[in-house]
Amino acid sequence: MSEPDDLALLRQAFAVAARAATHGNHPFGAVLAGPDGQVLMEQENGYLPDRDMTGHAERVLMTRACTTYPPAFLRSCTIYSSAEPCAMCAGAIYWAGVGRLVYGMSEHDLKAVTGNHSENPTLDLPCRTVFAAGQRNVEIIGPLLADEAAALHEGAWGIPIP
Amino acid sequence: MSEPDDLALLRQAFAVAARAATHGNHPFGAVLAGPDGQVLMEQENGYLPDRDMTGHAERVLMTRACTTYPPAFLRSCTIYSSAEPCAMCAGAIYWAGVGRLVYGMSEHDLKAVTGNHSENPTLDLPCRTVFAAGQRNVEIIGPLLADEAAALHEGAWGIPIP
Repeated sequence: MSEPDDLALLRQAFAVAARAATHGNHPFGAVLAGPDGQVLMEQENGYLPDRDMTGHAERVLMTRACTTYPPAFLRSCTIYSSAEPCAMCAGAIYWAGVGRLVYGMSEHDLKAVTGNHSENPTLDLPCRTVFAAGQRNVEIIGPLLADEAAALHEGAWGIPIP
Repeated sequence: MSEPDDLALLRQAFAVAARAATHGNHPFGAVLAGPDGQVLMEQENGYLPDRDMTGHAERVLMTRACTTYPPAFLRSCTIYSSAEPCAMCAGAIYWAGVGRLVYGMSEHDLKAVTGNHSENPTLDLPCRTVFAAGQRNVEIIGPLLADEAAALHEGAWGIPIP
């Protein structure tokens, strides 16, 4: 896939993240695209409505993806994520069998945003560390458009979620 | 909690894993126990019926736990897992806020069992590496009763799941 497609699809993940915020969630979003760049699924952060701490956008998207598409097809797909996947989400991407990952801001930069607002502010572990422990190659591009990704989080933290 | 309680509850997770195998899944199981050792929830490997590659016992149990119990209570709980949680599951335990983990066989030993039977045989990453990247302490005990845990997997791999 060409670089402009990656940028456009990553920005689509940013738009999904912004939509999550309008639904009361923290601004995270992810998009699954097929081998020709066609959008297959979108997923907002799914913490609300059930207070699901495991409802990160990428993890939920991977659960949906692998129960919908066969592993061989997912190898040809790309997941676009507004922020670097945490260990849980990187693991989910690995198990689902998706072949490629493009993400916006890094987990480390995210920690600076979230660190004062939660008892579990972040898992400050590069997703590449998780993928390197696997036996299947996953192509990873990121951080990319990190400033745009970070702008999503301005004013989005420190407000109690009702 | 005393050591015998840990052993009994870990063996209960082994029994849940054995039950998963009778339902056609690979033999993994997990148990959530409260501060007095009372069993709150059990979870078998949930790959089948939906071919959910993210349906590991611990991940599903953590999704159920954090949408059922408040984070402050989960801090006082222990998750017992028949095998060491992968990166996805360790991340889920961290996010759910569970305070303590006891597991059977190590991920590394598990790789020797699963390695010839899958394109994604395992994420050979110690769960302690994931937890060390967090900002909240999780007490970890394991491997424990590793031989009993490994025995669950005898003959359970290399048979295609229909």
